[in-house]
Amino acid sequence: MKRQVYFVSDRTGITIEALGHSLLSQFKDLKFEFTTLRYVDSLNKIENLCQTIDGYEGEERPLIFSTLVDGQLRAKLGRVNAHVFDLMGEFLTPLEEILNTQASLALGHTHGPGSDKHYAHRMDAVNYALLNDDGLTTRHLDRADIILIGPSRSGKTPTCLYLAMQYGVYAANYPLVEEDFELMRLPGVLAKRRDQLFGLSITAERLQQIREVRRPDSEYASIKQCQYEVNQIGILYRENRISTCDVTQRSVEEIATRILPHLHLL
Amino acid sequence: MKRQVYFVSDRTGITIEALGHSLLSQFKDLKFEFTTLRYVDSLNKIENLCQTIDGYEGEERPLIFSTLVDGQLRAKLGRVNAHVFDLMGEFLTPLEEILNTQASLALGHTHGPGSDKHYAHRMDAVNYALLNDDGLTTRHLDRADIILIGPSRSGKTPTCLYLAMQYGVYAANYPLVEEDFELMRLPGVLAKRRDQLFGLSITAERLQQIREVRRPDSEYASIKQCQYEVNQIGILYRENRISTCDVTQRSVEEIATRILPHLHLL
Repeated sequence: MKRQVYFVSDRTGITIEALGHSLLSQFKDLKFEFTTLRYVDSLNKIENLCQTIDGYEGEERPLIFSTLVDGQLRAKLGRVNAHVFDLMGEFLTPLEEILNTQASLALGHTHGPGSDKHYAHRMDAVNYALLNDDGLTTRHLDRADIILIGPSRSGKTPTCLYLAMQYGVYAANYPLVEEDFELMRLPGVLAKRRDQLFGLSITAERLQQIREVRRPDSEYASIKQCQYEVNQIGILYRENRISTCDVTQRSVEEIATRILPHLHLL
Repeated sequence: MKRQVYFVSDRTGITIEALGHSLLSQFKDLKFEFTTLRYVDSLNKIENLCQTIDGYEGEERPLIFSTLVDGQLRAKLGRVNAHVFDLMGEFLTPLEEILNTQASLALGHTHGPGSDKHYAHRMDAVNYALLNDDGLTTRHLDRADIILIGPSRSGKTPTCLYLAMQYGVYAANYPLVEEDFELMRLPGVLAKRRDQLFGLSITAERLQQIREVRRPDSEYASIKQCQYEVNQIGILYRENRISTCDVTQRSVEEIATRILPHLHLL
Protein backbone atom coordinates (compact mmCIF):
# COMPACT_ATOMS: atom_id res chain seq x y z
CA MET A 1 0.00 0.00 0.00
CA LYS A 2 1.43 3.38 -1.00
CA ARG A 3 0.95 6.28 1.36
CA GLN A 4 -0.89 9.14 -0.36
CA VAL A 5 0.98 12.45 -0.31
CA TYR A 6 -0.50 15.76 -1.44
CA PHE A 7 1.46 18.92 -2.10
CA VAL A 8 -0.91 21.88 -1.95
CA SER A 9 0.07 25.37 -3.07
CA ASP A 10 -1.74 28.56 -4.03
CA ARG A 11 1.03 29.18 -6.56
CA THR A 12 3.36 26.93 -8.61
CA GLY A 13 3.95 24.30 -5.91
CA ILE A 14 7.60 24.00 -6.96
CA THR A 15 8.95 24.79 -3.50
CA ILE A 16 6.69 22.47 -1.53
CA GLU A 17 7.28 19.62 -4.00
CA ALA A 18 11.02 19.97 -3.46
CA LEU A 19 10.75 20.17 0.33
CA GLY A 20 8.29 17.28 0.58
CA HIS A 21 10.41 15.02 -1.61
CA SER A 22 13.46 15.94 0.42
CA LEU A 23 11.76 15.08 3.75
CA LEU A 24 10.24 11.84 2.50
CA SER A 25 13.52 10.72 0.90
CA GLN A 26 14.51 10.10 4.52
CA PHE A 27 12.07 7.14 4.54
CA LYS A 28 13.48 5.10 1.68
CA ASP A 29 11.76 1.84 2.58
CA LEU A 30 8.27 3.29 2.34
CA LYS A 31 6.31 3.82 -0.84
CA PHE A 32 4.53 7.09 -1.56
CA GLU A 33 2.14 8.27 -4.22
CA PHE A 34 2.51 11.97 -4.91
CA THR A 35 -0.10 14.42 -6.14
CA THR A 36 0.59 18.13 -6.54
CA LEU A 37 -2.30 20.58 -6.46
CA ARG A 38 -1.23 23.98 -7.77
CA TYR A 39 -3.02 27.33 -7.83
CA VAL A 40 -5.40 26.27 -5.06
CA ASP A 41 -6.53 29.83 -4.45
CA SER A 42 -10.27 29.68 -3.75
CA LEU A 43 -12.57 28.25 -1.12
CA ASN A 44 -14.23 26.25 -3.86
CA LYS A 45 -11.00 24.53 -4.85
CA ILE A 46 -10.07 23.78 -1.25
CA GLU A 47 -13.52 22.32 -0.56
CA ASN A 48 -13.17 19.97 -3.52
CA LEU A 49 -9.76 18.90 -2.27
CA CYS A 50 -11.06 18.31 1.28
CA GLN A 51 -13.91 16.20 -0.06
CA THR A 52 -11.51 14.02 -2.04
CA ILE A 53 -9.26 13.54 0.95
CA ASP A 54 -12.04 12.95 3.49
CA GLY A 55 -13.44 10.37 1.08
CA TYR A 56 -10.16 8.50 0.81
CA GLU A 57 -10.83 4.98 2.03
CA GLY A 58 -7.31 3.62 2.51
CA GLU A 59 -6.31 2.55 6.00
CA GLU A 60 -3.59 5.13 6.41
CA ARG A 61 -4.52 8.78 6.28
CA PRO A 62 -2.83 10.88 3.57
CA LEU A 63 -0.01 13.33 4.28
CA ILE A 64 -0.52 16.91 3.15
CA PHE A 65 2.27 19.45 2.75
CA SER A 66 0.89 22.91 2.18
CA THR A 67 2.21 26.40 1.51
CA LEU A 68 -1.21 28.08 1.37
CA VAL A 69 -1.02 31.68 2.53
CA ASP A 70 -4.69 32.66 2.93
CA GLY A 71 -5.82 32.13 6.51
CA GLN A 72 -9.32 30.94 5.61
CA LEU A 73 -8.03 28.31 3.18
CA ARG A 74 -5.44 27.16 5.70
CA ALA A 75 -8.08 26.82 8.43
CA LYS A 76 -10.31 24.79 6.13
CA LEU A 77 -7.45 22.49 5.11
CA GLY A 78 -6.43 22.11 8.75
CA ARG A 79 -9.72 20.36 9.53
CA VAL A 80 -9.40 17.67 6.85
CA ASN A 81 -8.99 14.04 7.90
CA ALA A 82 -5.27 13.80 7.14
CA HIS A 83 -1.86 14.70 8.55
CA VAL A 84 -1.39 18.31 7.51
CA PHE A 85 2.00 20.03 7.49
CA ASP A 86 1.17 23.70 7.12
CA LEU A 87 4.48 25.41 6.30
CA MET A 88 3.09 28.92 6.52
CA GLY A 89 1.34 28.28 9.82
CA GLU A 90 4.47 26.68 11.21
CA PHE A 91 6.88 29.45 10.31
CA LEU A 92 5.03 32.70 9.69
CA THR A 93 3.83 33.12 13.26
CA PRO A 94 7.31 32.84 14.83
CA LEU A 95 8.72 34.99 12.01
CA GLU A 96 6.12 37.68 12.73
CA GLU A 97 7.26 37.75 16.34
CA ILE A 98 10.95 37.82 15.58
CA LEU A 99 10.59 40.45 12.87
CA ASN A 100 7.99 42.36 14.88
CA THR A 101 5.96 42.76 11.68
CA GLN A 102 2.73 41.27 10.41
CA ALA A 103 2.98 38.97 7.40
CA SER A 104 1.17 40.49 4.42
CA LEU A 105 -0.58 37.17 3.68
CA ALA A 106 -0.67 38.21 0.04
CA LEU A 107 -0.23 35.39 -2.41
CA GLY A 108 3.43 34.53 -2.68
CA HIS A 109 5.03 35.16 -6.04
CA THR A 110 8.30 33.37 -5.50
CA HIS A 111 8.32 32.44 -9.15
CA GLY A 112 6.45 35.46 -10.49
CA PRO A 113 8.09 37.95 -12.84
CA GLY A 114 6.71 40.95 -10.96
CA SER A 115 8.21 40.19 -7.58
CA ASP A 116 11.33 38.71 -9.11
CA LYS A 117 13.59 41.69 -9.84
CA HIS A 118 15.97 39.15 -11.12
CA TYR A 119 13.53 37.75 -13.71
CA ALA A 120 14.45 39.67 -16.86
CA HIS A 121 18.08 39.00 -16.04
CA ARG A 122 17.46 35.25 -15.70
CA MET A 123 15.69 35.11 -19.05
CA ASP A 124 18.46 37.11 -20.70
CA ALA A 125 20.98 34.67 -19.22
CA VAL A 126 19.02 31.72 -20.71
CA ASN A 127 19.17 33.37 -24.14
CA TYR A 128 22.86 33.99 -23.62
CA ALA A 129 23.48 30.33 -22.73
CA LEU A 130 21.63 29.19 -25.85
CA LEU A 131 23.53 31.59 -28.08
CA ASN A 132 26.89 30.68 -26.57
CA ASP A 133 26.41 26.95 -26.41
CA ASP A 134 29.08 24.63 -27.71
CA GLY A 135 31.28 27.42 -29.04
CA LEU A 136 28.56 28.36 -31.57
CA THR A 137 29.87 31.87 -31.45
CA THR A 138 32.74 33.43 -29.53
CA ARG A 139 31.71 37.02 -30.12
CA HIS A 140 30.03 37.39 -26.73
CA LEU A 141 32.54 35.55 -24.55
CA ASP A 142 33.56 38.80 -22.90
CA ARG A 143 30.13 38.95 -21.27
CA ALA A 144 30.46 35.46 -19.79
CA ASP A 145 30.49 35.14 -16.03
CA ILE A 146 31.92 31.70 -16.62
CA ILE A 147 33.01 29.54 -19.57
CA LEU A 148 32.62 25.80 -19.03
CA ILE A 149 35.00 23.44 -20.74
CA GLY A 150 35.11 19.65 -20.68
CA PRO A 151 34.85 16.60 -22.92
CA SER A 152 31.86 16.27 -25.22
CA ARG A 153 28.86 14.87 -23.24
CA SER A 154 30.16 15.83 -19.81
CA GLY A 155 27.09 17.99 -19.18
CA LYS A 156 28.30 21.47 -20.13
CA THR A 157 25.09 22.55 -21.89
CA PRO A 158 22.48 21.60 -19.25
CA THR A 159 24.74 23.00 -16.52
CA CYS A 160 24.94 26.35 -18.36
CA LEU A 161 21.17 26.37 -18.81
CA TYR A 162 20.56 25.62 -15.14
CA LEU A 163 23.01 28.31 -13.99
CA ALA A 164 21.18 30.77 -16.24
CA MET A 165 17.59 29.79 -15.42
CA GLN A 166 18.01 29.43 -11.65
CA TYR A 167 20.70 31.97 -10.85
CA GLY A 168 20.88 34.38 -13.80
CA VAL A 169 24.51 33.46 -14.44
CA TYR A 170 25.87 34.21 -17.93
CA ALA A 171 27.41 30.86 -18.74
CA ALA A 172 29.01 29.95 -22.04
CA ASN A 173 30.55 26.65 -22.96
CA TYR A 174 33.25 25.70 -25.39
CA PRO A 175 34.08 22.26 -26.71
CA LEU A 176 37.70 21.16 -26.76
CA VAL A 177 38.47 19.18 -29.90
CA GLU A 178 40.97 16.60 -31.07
CA GLU A 179 43.38 19.29 -32.20
CA ASP A 180 43.45 20.87 -28.73
CA PHE A 181 44.32 17.52 -27.20
CA GLU A 182 47.06 16.89 -29.73
CA LEU A 183 48.66 20.29 -29.36
CA MET A 184 47.95 20.13 -25.63
CA ARG A 185 47.09 23.77 -25.40
CA LEU A 186 43.98 25.86 -24.94
CA PRO A 187 42.51 27.37 -28.11
CA GLY A 188 43.47 31.05 -28.40
CA VAL A 189 39.98 32.31 -27.64
CA LEU A 190 40.09 30.52 -24.27
CA ALA A 191 43.74 31.15 -23.46
CA LYS A 192 43.08 34.87 -23.18
CA ARG A 193 40.09 34.27 -20.90
CA ARG A 194 41.73 31.85 -18.50
CA ASP A 195 40.16 33.57 -15.49
CA GLN A 196 36.64 32.72 -16.61
CA LEU A 197 37.33 29.06 -17.36
CA PHE A 198 35.89 26.23 -15.30
CA GLY A 199 36.55 22.59 -16.16
CA LEU A 200 34.22 19.61 -15.87
CA SER A 201 35.98 16.32 -15.06
CA ILE A 202 34.50 12.87 -15.47
CA THR A 203 35.79 9.30 -15.36
CA ALA A 204 36.45 7.63 -18.71
CA GLU A 205 34.06 4.80 -17.74
CA ARG A 206 31.12 7.11 -17.10
CA LEU A 207 31.88 9.17 -20.21
CA GLN A 208 31.89 6.00 -22.30
CA GLN A 209 28.51 4.99 -20.84
CA ILE A 210 26.93 8.32 -21.77
CA ARG A 211 28.47 8.44 -25.26
CA GLU A 212 27.47 4.83 -25.93
CA VAL A 213 23.80 5.78 -25.56
CA ARG A 214 24.34 8.62 -27.99
CA ARG A 215 26.43 6.86 -30.65
CA PRO A 216 26.60 3.11 -29.99
CA ASP A 217 29.75 1.24 -31.05
CA SER A 218 31.44 4.38 -32.34
CA GLU A 219 35.10 5.31 -32.03
CA TYR A 220 33.77 8.40 -30.19
CA ALA A 221 32.21 6.18 -27.52
CA SER A 222 35.13 3.75 -27.21
CA ILE A 223 36.79 3.44 -23.83
CA LYS A 224 40.14 4.11 -25.51
CA GLN A 225 39.00 7.46 -26.91
CA CYS A 226 37.32 8.43 -23.62
CA GLN A 227 40.44 7.55 -21.63
CA TYR A 228 42.60 9.57 -24.01
CA GLU A 229 40.38 12.66 -23.78
CA VAL A 230 39.91 12.46 -20.03
CA ASN A 231 43.64 12.09 -19.53
CA GLN A 232 44.64 14.93 -21.85
CA ILE A 233 42.01 17.29 -20.51
CA GLY A 234 43.12 16.57 -16.96
CA ILE A 235 46.64 17.66 -17.87
CA LEU A 236 45.29 20.78 -19.59
CA TYR A 237 43.33 21.69 -16.46
CA ARG A 238 46.36 21.24 -14.21
CA GLU A 239 48.82 23.03 -16.46
CA ASN A 240 46.49 26.00 -16.77
CA ARG A 241 45.41 25.92 -13.12
CA ILE A 242 41.76 25.70 -14.04
CA SER A 243 39.24 25.07 -11.24
CA THR A 244 37.32 21.86 -11.82
CA CYS A 245 34.38 19.84 -10.57
CA ASP A 246 34.05 16.08 -10.93
CA VAL A 247 30.66 15.50 -12.52
CA THR A 248 30.77 11.69 -12.58
CA GLN A 249 28.24 11.19 -9.78
CA ARG A 250 26.63 14.60 -9.81
CA SER A 251 23.41 16.03 -11.12
CA VAL A 252 23.21 19.28 -13.04
CA GLU A 253 21.84 20.97 -9.92
CA GLU A 254 24.79 19.74 -7.87
CA ILE A 255 27.36 20.75 -10.49
CA ALA A 256 25.80 24.21 -10.84
CA THR A 257 25.77 24.85 -7.09
CA ARG A 258 29.38 23.62 -6.83
CA ILE A 259 30.36 26.18 -9.47
CA LEU A 260 28.57 29.15 -7.81
CA PRO A 261 31.23 29.88 -5.17
CA HIS A 262 33.86 30.11 -7.92
CA LEU A 263 31.94 32.92 -9.61
CA HIS A 264 32.95 35.24 -6.80
CA LEU A 265 36.55 34.20 -7.13
CA LEU A 266 36.78 34.39 -10.90
CA MET B 1 19.80 47.93 8.51
CA LYS B 2 19.28 44.73 6.61
CA ARG B 3 18.43 41.58 8.55
CA GLN B 4 21.00 38.87 7.89
CA VAL B 5 19.51 35.63 6.59
CA TYR B 6 21.48 32.40 6.18
CA PHE B 7 20.32 29.36 4.23
CA VAL B 8 22.28 26.33 5.41
CA SER B 9 22.20 23.00 3.62
CA ASP B 10 24.32 19.86 3.55
CA ARG B 11 23.47 19.55 -0.16
CA THR B 12 22.64 22.06 -2.93
CA GLY B 13 20.54 24.43 -0.79
CA ILE B 14 18.11 24.94 -3.68
CA THR B 15 15.06 23.86 -1.66
CA ILE B 16 15.77 25.91 1.44
CA GLU B 17 16.59 28.99 -0.66
CA ALA B 18 13.18 28.72 -2.34
CA LEU B 19 11.28 28.16 0.91
CA GLY B 20 13.10 30.93 2.76
CA HIS B 21 12.52 33.45 -0.02
CA SER B 22 8.86 32.44 -0.15
CA LEU B 23 8.39 32.94 3.62
CA LEU B 24 10.25 36.22 3.74
CA SER B 25 8.41 37.58 0.68
CA GLN B 26 5.55 37.90 3.16
CA PHE B 27 7.46 40.76 4.82
CA LYS B 28 7.86 43.10 1.87
CA ASP B 29 8.68 46.20 3.87
CA LEU B 30 11.73 44.68 5.51
CA LYS B 31 15.16 44.40 3.94
CA PHE B 32 17.12 41.16 4.07
CA GLU B 33 20.63 40.18 3.11
CA PHE B 34 20.82 36.57 1.99
CA THR B 35 23.74 34.18 2.21
CA THR B 36 23.50 30.54 1.15
CA LEU B 37 25.92 28.02 2.61
CA ARG B 38 25.87 24.79 0.62
CA TYR B 39 27.47 21.41 1.24
CA VAL B 40 27.87 22.14 4.97
CA ASP B 41 28.57 18.52 5.78
CA SER B 42 31.27 18.49 8.46
CA LEU B 43 31.65 19.60 12.06
CA ASN B 44 34.50 21.79 10.92
CA LYS B 45 32.34 23.69 8.45
CA ILE B 46 29.52 24.13 10.95
CA GLU B 47 31.95 25.42 13.58
CA ASN B 48 33.26 28.05 11.18
CA LEU B 49 29.71 29.09 10.41
CA CYS B 50 28.77 29.31 14.09
CA GLN B 51 31.83 31.44 14.79
CA THR B 52 30.87 33.87 12.02
CA ILE B 53 27.32 34.14 13.27
CA ASP B 54 28.18 34.40 16.97
CA GLY B 55 30.62 37.15 16.00
CA TYR B 56 28.00 39.16 14.08
CA GLU B 57 27.77 42.52 15.80
CA GLY B 58 24.52 43.91 14.36
CA GLU B 59 21.73 44.68 16.78
CA GLU B 60 19.32 42.13 15.33
CA ARG B 61 20.27 38.49 15.42
CA PRO B 62 20.45 36.71 12.04
CA LEU B 63 17.80 34.29 10.82
CA ILE B 64 18.96 30.81 9.85
CA PHE B 65 16.95 28.40 7.73
CA SER B 66 18.51 24.98 7.72
CA THR B 67 17.89 21.61 6.10
CA LEU B 68 20.84 19.86 7.74
CA VAL B 69 20.14 16.17 8.25
CA ASP B 70 22.98 15.07 10.53
CA GLY B 71 21.90 15.22 14.19
CA GLN B 72 25.26 16.37 15.50
CA LEU B 73 25.49 19.26 13.04
CA ARG B 74 21.90 20.26 13.77
CA ALA B 75 22.53 20.25 17.51
CA LYS B 76 25.61 22.44 17.07
CA LEU B 77 23.76 24.91 14.83
CA GLY B 78 20.86 24.95 17.30
CA ARG B 79 23.10 26.53 19.94
CA VAL B 80 24.25 29.46 17.82
CA ASN B 81 23.22 33.00 18.78
CA ALA B 82 20.55 33.42 16.08
CA HIS B 83 16.97 32.47 15.25
CA VAL B 84 17.27 28.98 13.79
CA PHE B 85 14.52 27.38 11.71
CA ASP B 86 15.52 23.74 11.53
CA LEU B 87 13.30 22.21 8.84
CA MET B 88 14.42 18.68 9.50
CA GLY B 89 13.99 18.93 13.25
CA GLU B 90 10.58 20.49 12.77
CA PHE B 91 9.16 17.89 10.42
CA LEU B 92 11.15 14.66 10.65
CA THR B 93 10.14 13.86 14.22
CA PRO B 94 6.37 14.09 13.59
CA LEU B 95 6.85 12.26 10.28
CA GLU B 96 8.68 9.44 12.08
CA GLU B 97 5.70 9.06 14.42
CA ILE B 98 3.07 9.18 11.70
CA LEU B 99 4.98 6.81 9.42
CA ASN B 100 6.07 4.65 12.36
CA THR B 101 9.53 4.47 10.83
CA GLN B 102 12.87 5.98 11.73
CA ALA B 103 14.29 8.56 9.32
CA SER B 104 17.50 7.29 7.76
CA LEU B 105 19.27 10.60 8.43
CA ALA B 106 21.43 9.88 5.41
CA LEU B 107 22.37 12.93 3.41
CA GLY B 108 19.47 13.89 1.19
CA HIS B 109 20.05 13.67 -2.53
CA THR B 110 16.97 15.45 -3.76
CA HIS B 111 18.98 16.73 -6.68
CA GLY B 112 21.35 13.80 -7.01
CA PRO B 113 21.37 11.62 -10.11
CA GLY B 114 21.57 8.41 -8.09
CA SER B 115 18.41 8.86 -6.06
CA ASP B 116 16.64 10.57 -8.93
CA LYS B 117 15.26 7.74 -11.07
CA HIS B 118 13.96 10.48 -13.23
CA TYR B 119 17.38 12.05 -13.85
CA ALA B 120 18.46 10.47 -17.13
CA HIS B 121 14.98 11.16 -18.44
CA ARG B 122 15.18 14.84 -17.45
CA MET B 123 18.53 15.24 -19.19
CA ASP B 124 17.22 13.50 -22.30
CA ALA B 125 14.25 15.86 -22.28
CA VAL B 126 16.62 18.87 -22.12
CA ASN B 127 18.47 17.57 -25.17
CA TYR B 128 15.15 17.01 -26.88
CA ALA B 129 14.03 20.58 -26.16
CA LEU B 130 17.27 21.97 -27.58
CA LEU B 131 17.03 19.84 -30.70
CA ASN B 132 13.37 20.68 -31.27
CA ASP B 133 13.57 24.37 -30.51
CA ASP B 134 12.02 26.89 -32.86
CA GLY B 135 11.04 24.30 -35.46
CA LEU B 136 14.73 23.53 -36.10
CA THR B 137 13.69 20.06 -37.07
CA THR B 138 10.28 18.41 -37.25
CA ARG B 139 11.58 14.86 -37.48
CA HIS B 140 11.06 14.13 -33.80
CA LEU B 141 7.72 15.83 -33.24
CA ASP B 142 6.03 12.47 -32.75
CA ARG B 143 7.96 12.06 -29.51
CA ALA B 144 6.76 15.41 -28.16
CA ASP B 145 4.60 15.38 -25.04
CA ILE B 146 3.67 18.90 -26.01
CA ILE B 147 4.35 21.35 -28.83
CA LEU B 148 4.27 25.01 -27.83
CA ILE B 149 3.19 27.60 -30.35
CA GLY B 150 2.94 31.35 -29.99
CA PRO B 151 4.33 34.59 -31.40
CA SER B 152 8.08 35.06 -31.57
CA ARG B 153 9.41 36.18 -28.12
CA SER B 154 6.44 34.94 -26.13
CA GLY B 155 8.68 32.63 -24.10
CA LYS B 156 8.34 29.30 -25.90
CA THR B 157 12.00 28.31 -25.63
CA PRO B 158 12.63 28.94 -21.91
CA THR B 159 9.28 27.33 -21.07
CA CYS B 160 10.25 24.18 -23.00
CA LEU B 161 13.63 24.09 -21.26
CA TYR B 162 12.04 24.47 -17.83
CA LEU B 163 9.44 21.76 -18.51
CA ALA B 164 12.29 19.47 -19.57
CA MET B 165 14.76 20.25 -16.80
CA GLN B 166 12.30 20.27 -13.89
CA TYR B 167 9.68 17.73 -14.98
CA GLY B 168 11.26 15.63 -17.74
CA VAL B 169 8.60 16.72 -20.22
CA TYR B 170 9.47 16.35 -23.92
CA ALA B 171 8.55 19.81 -25.12
CA ALA B 172 9.06 21.06 -28.67
CA ASN B 173 8.19 24.49 -29.97
CA TYR B 174 7.32 25.72 -33.41
CA PRO B 175 7.28 29.31 -34.63
CA LEU B 176 4.28 30.49 -36.62
CA VAL B 177 5.35 32.79 -39.43
CA GLU B 178 3.86 35.55 -41.56
CA GLU B 179 2.58 33.04 -44.10
CA ASP B 180 0.62 31.13 -41.45
CA PHE B 181 -1.06 34.35 -40.36
CA GLU B 182 -1.92 35.30 -43.92
CA LEU B 183 -3.36 31.93 -44.82
CA MET B 184 -4.88 31.72 -41.34
CA ARG B 185 -4.19 28.06 -41.02
CA LEU B 186 -1.80 25.83 -39.08
CA PRO B 187 1.23 24.60 -41.00
CA GLY B 188 0.73 20.98 -42.11
CA VAL B 189 3.21 19.55 -39.66
CA LEU B 190 1.18 21.03 -36.78
CA ALA B 191 -2.29 20.42 -38.23
CA LYS B 192 -1.79 16.68 -37.99
CA ARG B 193 -0.61 16.99 -34.37
CA ARG B 194 -3.38 19.20 -33.09
CA ASP B 195 -3.72 17.17 -29.88
CA GLN B 196 -0.22 18.01 -28.75
CA LEU B 197 -0.46 21.74 -29.41
CA PHE B 198 -0.52 24.31 -26.64
CA GLY B 199 -0.70 28.04 -27.36
CA LEU B 200 0.97 30.92 -25.54
CA SER B 201 -1.03 34.15 -25.54
CA ILE B 202 0.33 37.59 -24.74
CA THR B 203 -0.91 41.16 -25.02
CA ALA B 204 0.39 43.18 -27.99
CA GLU B 205 1.74 45.83 -25.59
CA ARG B 206 3.87 43.38 -23.62
CA LEU B 207 5.05 41.66 -26.79
CA GLN B 208 6.13 45.00 -28.22
CA GLN B 209 8.06 45.78 -25.03
CA ILE B 210 9.98 42.51 -25.22
CA ARG B 211 10.67 42.77 -28.94
CA GLU B 212 11.78 46.38 -28.60
CA VAL B 213 14.63 45.29 -26.31
CA ARG B 214 15.62 42.70 -28.89
CA ARG B 215 15.35 44.78 -32.08
CA PRO B 216 14.73 48.46 -31.28
CA ASP B 217 12.68 50.50 -33.75
CA SER B 218 12.08 47.57 -36.07
CA GLU B 219 8.93 46.70 -37.96
CA TYR B 220 9.07 43.43 -35.99
CA ALA B 221 8.80 45.33 -32.69
CA SER B 222 6.15 47.81 -33.87
CA ILE B 223 2.86 47.85 -31.99
CA LYS B 224 1.07 47.43 -35.32
CA GLN B 225 2.88 44.20 -36.15
CA CYS B 226 2.46 42.87 -32.59
CA GLN B 227 -1.28 43.66 -32.62
CA TYR B 228 -1.65 41.93 -35.99
CA GLU B 229 0.13 38.76 -34.86
CA VAL B 230 -1.59 38.60 -31.48
CA ASN B 231 -4.96 39.03 -33.14
CA GLN B 232 -4.39 36.45 -35.88
CA ILE B 233 -2.91 33.89 -33.51
CA GLY B 234 -5.87 34.29 -31.15
CA ILE B 235 -8.23 33.41 -34.00
CA LEU B 236 -6.05 30.42 -34.95
CA TYR B 237 -6.15 29.16 -31.35
CA ARG B 238 -9.93 29.47 -31.16
CA GLU B 239 -10.67 27.97 -34.58
CA ASN B 240 -8.47 24.99 -33.79
CA ARG B 241 -9.62 24.70 -30.18
CA ILE B 242 -6.09 24.89 -28.85
CA SER B 243 -5.60 25.19 -25.07
CA THR B 244 -3.79 28.38 -24.17
CA CYS B 245 -2.12 30.19 -21.30
CA ASP B 246 -1.77 33.95 -21.05
CA VAL B 247 1.91 34.59 -20.39
CA THR B 248 1.75 38.38 -20.14
CA GLN B 249 2.23 38.56 -16.37
CA ARG B 250 3.68 35.11 -15.80
CA SER B 251 7.13 33.72 -15.22
CA VAL B 252 8.47 30.66 -17.00
CA GLU B 253 7.90 28.64 -13.81
CA GLU B 254 4.28 29.76 -13.69
CA ILE B 255 3.66 29.07 -17.37
CA ALA B 256 5.24 25.61 -17.12
CA THR B 257 3.18 24.63 -14.08
CA ARG B 258 0.02 25.93 -15.77
CA ILE B 259 0.77 23.66 -18.72
CA LEU B 260 1.40 20.52 -16.65
CA PRO B 261 -2.28 19.61 -16.04
CA HIS B 262 -2.90 19.72 -19.80
CA LEU B 263 -0.27 17.03 -20.37
CA HIS B 264 -2.62 14.47 -18.86
CA LEU B 265 -5.44 15.66 -21.06
CA LEU B 266 -3.52 15.87 -24.31
